[in-house]
Amino acid sequence: MDFKIYKEPQLKDPYMVTGLPGIGHVAKISADYLIEELKAELFEEIYSPSFPPYVLISKDGVVELLKNEFYYWKNTKLKNDLIIFTGNVQALTPEGQYEIAKEVLNRAEKFKVKKLFTMAAYVTNKPVTKPKVYGAVTHVELLEELKKYEVIQMDVGGISGTNGLIFGLAKLKNIPAICLLSETPGYVTSSGYAVIDPKAAQSLLEVLCKMLDIEIDLKPIEERVKMAEEFIQQLEEKEKYWRELIRKSTTPSPPKDIYL
Amino acid sequence: MDFKIYKEPQLKDPYMVTGLPGIGHVAKISADYLIEELKAELFEEIYSPSFPPYVLISKDGVVELLKNEFYYWKNTKLKNDLIIFTGNVQALTPEGQYEIAKEVLNRAEKFKVKKLFTMAAYVTNKPVTKPKVYGAVTHVELLEELKKYEVIQMDVGGISGTNGLIFGLAKLKNIPAICLLSETPGYVTSSGYAVIDPKAAQSLLEVLCKMLDIEIDLKPIEERVKMAEEFIQQLEEKEKYWRELIRKSTTPSPPKDIYL
Amino acid sequence: MDFKIYKEPQLKDPYMVTGLPGIGHVAKISADYLIEELKAELFEEIYSPSFPPYVLISKDGVVELLKNEFYYWKNTKLKNDLIIFTGNVQALTPEGQYEIAKEVLNRAEKFKVKKLFTMAAYVTNKPVTKPKVYGAVTHVELLEELKKYEVIQMDVGGISGTNGLIFGLAKLKNIPAICLLSETPGYVTSSGYAVIDPKAAQSLLEVLCKMLDIEIDLKPIEERVKMAEEFIQQLEEKEKYWRELIRKSTTPSPPKDIYL
Amino acid sequence: MDFKIYKEPQLKDPYMVTGLPGIGHVAKISADYLIEELKAELFEEIYSPSFPPYVLISKDGVVELLKNEFYYWKNTKLKNDLIIFTGNVQALTPEGQYEIAKEVLNRAEKFKVKKLFTMAAYVTNKPVTKPKVYGAVTHVELLEELKKYEVIQMDVGGISGTNGLIFGLAKLKNIPAICLLSETPGYVTSSGYAVIDPKAAQSLLEVLCKMLDIEIDLKPIEERVKMAEEFIQQLEEKEKYWRELIRKSTTPSPPKDIYL
Repeated sequence: MDFKIYKEPQLKDPYMVTGLPGIGHVAKISADYLIEELKAELFEEIYSPSFPPYVLISKDGVVELLKNEFYYWKNTKLKNDLIIFTGNVQALTPEGQYEIAKEVLNRAEKFKVKKLFTMAAYVTNKPVTKPKVYGAVTHVELLEELKKYEVIQMDVGGISGTNGLIFGLAKLKNIPAICLLSETPGYVTSSGYAVIDPKAAQSLLEVLCKMLDIEIDLKPIEERVKMAEEFIQQLEEKEKYWRELIRKSTTPSPPKDIYL
Repeated sequence: MDFKIYKEPQLKDPYMVTGLPGIGHVAKISADYLIEELKAELFEEIYSPSFPPYVLISKDGVVELLKNEFYYWKNTKLKNDLIIFTGNVQALTPEGQYEIAKEVLNRAEKFKVKKLFTMAAYVTNKPVTKPKVYGAVTHVELLEELKKYEVIQMDVGGISGTNGLIFGLAKLKNIPAICLLSETPGYVTSSGYAVIDPKAAQSLLEVLCKMLDIEIDLKPIEERVKMAEEFIQQLEEKEKYWRELIRKSTTPSPPKDIYL
Repeated sequence: MDFKIYKEPQLKDPYMVTGLPGIGHVAKISADYLIEELKAELFEEIYSPSFPPYVLISKDGVVELLKNEFYYWKNTKLKNDLIIFTGNVQALTPEGQYEIAKEVLNRAEKFKVKKLFTMAAYVTNKPVTKPKVYGAVTHVELLEELKKYEVIQMDVGGISGTNGLIFGLAKLKNIPAICLLSETPGYVTSSGYAVIDPKAAQSLLEVLCKMLDIEIDLKPIEERVKMAEEFIQQLEEKEKYWRELIRKSTTPSPPKDIYL
Repeated sequence: MDFKIYKEPQLKDPYMVTGLPGIGHVAKISADYLIEELKAELFEEIYSPSFPPYVLISKDGVVELLKNEFYYWKNTKLKNDLIIFTGNVQALTPEGQYEIAKEVLNRAEKFKVKKLFTMAAYVTNKPVTKPKVYGAVTHVELLEELKKYEVIQMDVGGISGTNGLIFGLAKLKNIPAICLLSETPGYVTSSGYAVIDPKAAQSLLEVLCKMLDIEIDLKPIEERVKMAEEFIQQLEEKEKYWRELIRKSTTPSPPKDIYL
């Protein structure tokens, strides 16, 4: 694993919010939107050997590694600063996801995070008009907080991937954490892209911002996501090519490409 | 790997019983039933990066990591205390299973375990009315014990997974061990759940309790498992959703979920 | 990982060129051709446990490990010497590819490489008459150089495998790097061999040699590749056998080959 | 990885012979036969986390781990003692196979092995009446030896798995090695068992014994293998059960066996 540290911020009793890409991009959209609206500042990047062996070329022709990122925001009005963890990818293997989750919790301990908010999708497999927000906790004392903000208590189920592991390992490390899950249909397009669900992110952020006691304008989120959807349509043509490239680089295969 | 140690018990010439989830849940049901009936006490949990990247939400809305666990029971009447090893999951990879098996045997050495009893299923692929119990050993001297308790000596075959590795590595570390295998049909339901087999566990526990010289009431085991079956039916609806989530988080796939 | 160091060359402000096997063999052919024409000298080999578990037997009956290689060339006329990185295989896993990429960049740092040129294929999925050359960079300052040599700036997309990771990690390590991608149809033969594309390599080398200010004769490249194609036809008969061998050795399978 | 050392033999300019299970069991049968006929003595066992997570129960009800083994034989008449490396399994992953191959070569270095003989199968995909023996070498000087014993020089191709890696890494460590490959059809039975090929082993051993200057009776090999074949028929019934067990323990799957 490699790290790039841009800054060592001094933070005041910070809260932490985590959201990696997943179903409907709910957690990722929410994290990105928070970062943008708060003008949160990047202070560290993580690069894992378990990320897909792939780099992105941006519009200006410059390469970007797949990465996970930490941002911070100084809250001048209230008593808790904020750390936001996100990224453009999840590790491919269970071991890689576990390792990332532990790095996140190491940062939480280092910065003496007071409360952790992890985000996830709650798949309904049917259309959702007004997404409801579900919650789960690391410690029973936190259930009060779910009630206070009218979050529906999850009563059975599971959360998978790095988003889930961060939440579970927080309990192990005795860091108080709340997981917020927003309803999303979980549909994918014919070409395999997950449908990006801004409505789910909006519902989630409404609750989260109240919990964080932060005021941000949630209207632009829909517009922002519309742009993302157009962008994705442009990408669909290139999708086959990408898929093939990745498949070749990650699938063990006979060395038919050996050049003698 | 992470460990959570709740207690460092002082144990008197302990025996150890191991049973992780597997076919028909035979070993797992048996371990759970022993723990419950004896009111055995949890003293250590193990969390492995090779467990599925998944956390459970319990009925009270609190998160649980997948884990393996050590319990102990102070035997006030007899000369041997008891350690019970179980958990709600097996590691996904051969390497992860090997690592767990070695941790179990390290505890066996640390607590100077006198004898190890590993449990497993013996798949018949046909209906079983009264499950027979088979046995295998690490040292020929132990074959006498199989005879004494009318356990059928396995004469060829194999045992897979962590339950098998614990047994095999016990021989390498020169810890006397007996593996008890109870007959089970090995069926799965249409939706892919293994049929939980309380009868197999009951047969196994009848023999094991004699070997351990422990008296417990085995009748409630059927009732207990009936509840588990009802619970599983409730879960079947959610199964598709879970399966998809896990598949997505463990399968290398093209980075179509990358959000730019 | 194992290393075989043949020589510790003293190099003058070197450039580095990297090209591992990939689609159309574009990068690999280009690297091999440079090595041959410049009579570059081998100075180090890398052997990775993540390469396919396979060894080659050459025409003279001598075994060769799969390997990645570093060559150097002393440029007597100009001010920059040259390091060329290539090999006959890519690591099978993302982790293995990441590890190799880091070794390459460690060499770049050790030899104080002034500029890195990575090579890759740009798949068109349609016939290509005159392959166009695309480019991407690690630092915006390098975009000028793309323009100067009439390289088309990539404006979105990605590069997969070790070739991509070397490029991305160069940015992380602040080593100026340009990736050149040459158009290739990306076809495979009926038996699964990638079609070797000398034309794509030729276009790429035309640009690269100008950038390196090196003059080499590019005509023999087509002839050289024709030989490679004939060689591949001879290999096709053996392909099934190889594929089966590799499949068996890398696929987890029931231990049916256990000999008791 | 775990090791069990039974003895530290003092060996006189030893040769080493290696043969793990593979196609037709050619290398494995040959190694086993040598061990049996020479009454070679076991001195070390290796257990790898990358072996299948599976243990065997032998006829006497005693458990056996899957393992790789080193045997030695004191040659009282000639000047070279002998080390034989074999086992009942190959590691599942490329990384696991590489690690085993390196352990083998570490032993070769430790005991100052003068020459290494690796064994493998040469698959014809058609019936073989009198198996021909092919050879390859680590150093051109050894080609003379192939000619002397009328071994056909391999002129192109490859050798996969641990048997191949041992051979290739011997060259890297500058240990003189010859690989002998015996023709075998490479058939499998309807239930997936590889056909054990005693004839191929016999041809290979004829050449190998001449090279080692050892005289052993090769007639019993056919009879011995006949027994093995009968044994395999008995196993076929149990095969389905085994296959399923292994599949379940090595395949990542949804945690449907989680017991709540």
